[in-house]
Amino acid sequence: MTDTRLDVLCIGNAIVDIIADCDDAFLEAEGLTKGMMRLIDAEEATRLYDHMGPAMEISGGSAGNTAAGVAALGGKAGFIGQVAPDQLGEFYRHDLTAQGVEFTTPAADLGVPTARSMVLVTPDAHRTMNTFLGAAQLLPPAALDEAQIEGAAVLYLEGYLWDPETPRYAMVKAIDIARRAGRKVAFTLSDTFCIDRHRDGFNELLDNGRIDILFANEAEIRMLAGAEDFDVAVAMVQNKVETLVVTRSELGAIAVRDGARAAVAAEPVDKVVDTTGAGDLFAAGFLYGYTNGRSLEQSLRIGAIAAAEVISHYGARPEADLKALVAARLG
Amino acid sequence: MTDTRLDVLCIGNAIVDIIADCDDAFLEAEGLTKGMMRLIDAEEATRLYDHMGPAMEISGGSAGNTAAGVAALGGKAGFIGQVAPDQLGEFYRHDLTAQGVEFTTPAADLGVPTARSMVLVTPDAHRTMNTFLGAAQLLPPAALDEAQIEGAAVLYLEGYLWDPETPRYAMVKAIDIARRAGRKVAFTLSDTFCIDRHRDGFNELLDNGRIDILFANEAEIRMLAGAEDFDVAVAMVQNKVETLVVTRSELGAIAVRDGARAAVAAEPVDKVVDTTGAGDLFAAGFLYGYTNGRSLEQSLRIGAIAAAEVISHYGARPEADLKALVAARLG
Repeated sequence: MTDTRLDVLCIGNAIVDIIADCDDAFLEAEGLTKGMMRLIDAEEATRLYDHMGPAMEISGGSAGNTAAGVAALGGKAGFIGQVAPDQLGEFYRHDLTAQGVEFTTPAADLGVPTARSMVLVTPDAHRTMNTFLGAAQLLPPAALDEAQIEGAAVLYLEGYLWDPETPRYAMVKAIDIARRAGRKVAFTLSDTFCIDRHRDGFNELLDNGRIDILFANEAEIRMLAGAEDFDVAVAMVQNKVETLVVTRSELGAIAVRDGARAAVAAEPVDKVVDTTGAGDLFAAGFLYGYTNGRSLEQSLRIGAIAAAEVISHYGARPEADLKALVAARLG
Repeated sequence: MTDTRLDVLCIGNAIVDIIADCDDAFLEAEGLTKGMMRLIDAEEATRLYDHMGPAMEISGGSAGNTAAGVAALGGKAGFIGQVAPDQLGEFYRHDLTAQGVEFTTPAADLGVPTARSMVLVTPDAHRTMNTFLGAAQLLPPAALDEAQIEGAAVLYLEGYLWDPETPRYAMVKAIDIARRAGRKVAFTLSDTFCIDRHRDGFNELLDNGRIDILFANEAEIRMLAGAEDFDVAVAMVQNKVETLVVTRSELGAIAVRDGARAAVAAEPVDKVVDTTGAGDLFAAGFLYGYTNGRSLEQSLRIGAIAAAEVISHYGARPEADLKALVAARLG
């Protein structure tokens, strides 16, 4: 096994978030379920955009947020995902590159624009996402750079990428490359609706031992295991992976590795503004710790610190100096 | 004089703000003067963007911010300005329209993109703006809708529009239409560098009695009058207009009309995050009061409340419910 060039290489949908406030009545009138992510087509994207309030655009995408978080913590991060050659695509590339993330996947001129997710934030800080996948859903296996994957200590994949068919093939190919090179493969279940859509595929990955590190929140681990009880769900899944990380919102997070279990409390937050990206940044913090020789508990702490920062403002990318934050709180 | 259909119709550069944090060292390395707005060409825009950090995009433009503010306060606002038929232009139109602003100027397909301003925010919350005017600088006089101007109680113009030649003609034509219809014309001096570039033009407008309401901050009124002393500067300008409004940052603001002077303190702000738009939203609040029968002092108060809201977050458009804020604080 050669030296690693990157700590974490993330593959995901390259999506710009279009973030607007709304009230509960708006969600109801639009027939939207609070907290969910739904996939929409170009027509529905236009219709919804015409109805929603003034917005801000901030680069997002689950795995992209994680890559940005790893880089903000001082880690070496890469990202693979597909944008179109348009202004949104330029924003996306700029924001990752400016954060120090290696992002070399070329823009694809396929007649579809860069993906965007209309993120509706209610006064309780919950986000309801309406995603038009655009160019992201056409990421071909050929866009993968094998040497880049072989040179990353951890390959990180988002469950959302299982939705569109073409990137799914790219993901499976990337897992093969990483495993052949003796690298770790990390995977996030993304959300309960995503598990509902792809339960068989996810279980096949886990049962075949192709995932080393699994990220989930409480609802997701219960849904995957088909168990109501949290501890039962954890027990059912923990032996399928080397490391299992489960976030529990205000209850903090736990991790299980080789039968040993660590737990941390949630970091205090003055005011929760927008929960978008909490899970993505938790994964970034944990993986930064994991790839930099931190203990299981310390890695969880870094995840909790990064997640607390991102939910204190709009957008799913870090704004504060995460490196300094972690140094101050963890030493 | 027929009834008015709009309270305030604003003409300005249609600009999307690309907002990023930076430190003082970055400004120094780039040779930028903190707090100024400079105009840059496409090449410099690309160069600077490549150097700056991860950003968020929020619709801006001085007069556009004022229009958004008037609408957020419950007033009837319109905007005239030119975007290109691209994604930034679509954002711009969406954000104004979603705020309830009438914006009917068509997008112009002239081979130049929608204007953008790279707003660099230092830890002291000051903003340094680098503006590529793109399609905005080509707003032709023919784009004006005469009936729309005739139907607005106040025509509001930004000094920045004096920079590019074509929109300057449009501004002068709009003033003619408004005055013939017996409407009020309001004007903001925008910034000291802008006054330096266009002192003769601005003084000609004022000396010929073509401006009814003038907005300035302390540095601007001093610069225009060529007087070091604040009271001397105010005395030199106040008789050239019906109403003079001068904002003084932490010192609040004053207004002078027919020799009578009103003053208000600044509204308290928990934490100043980004001062972009403070003057624009002050003007919005004042003009909302002015066109809705409020006293000089009450109009200043509404201006101070709107300005305090906008400097408490990133971006120059209101996020909180301004109407409710004013009702709570002013009654």
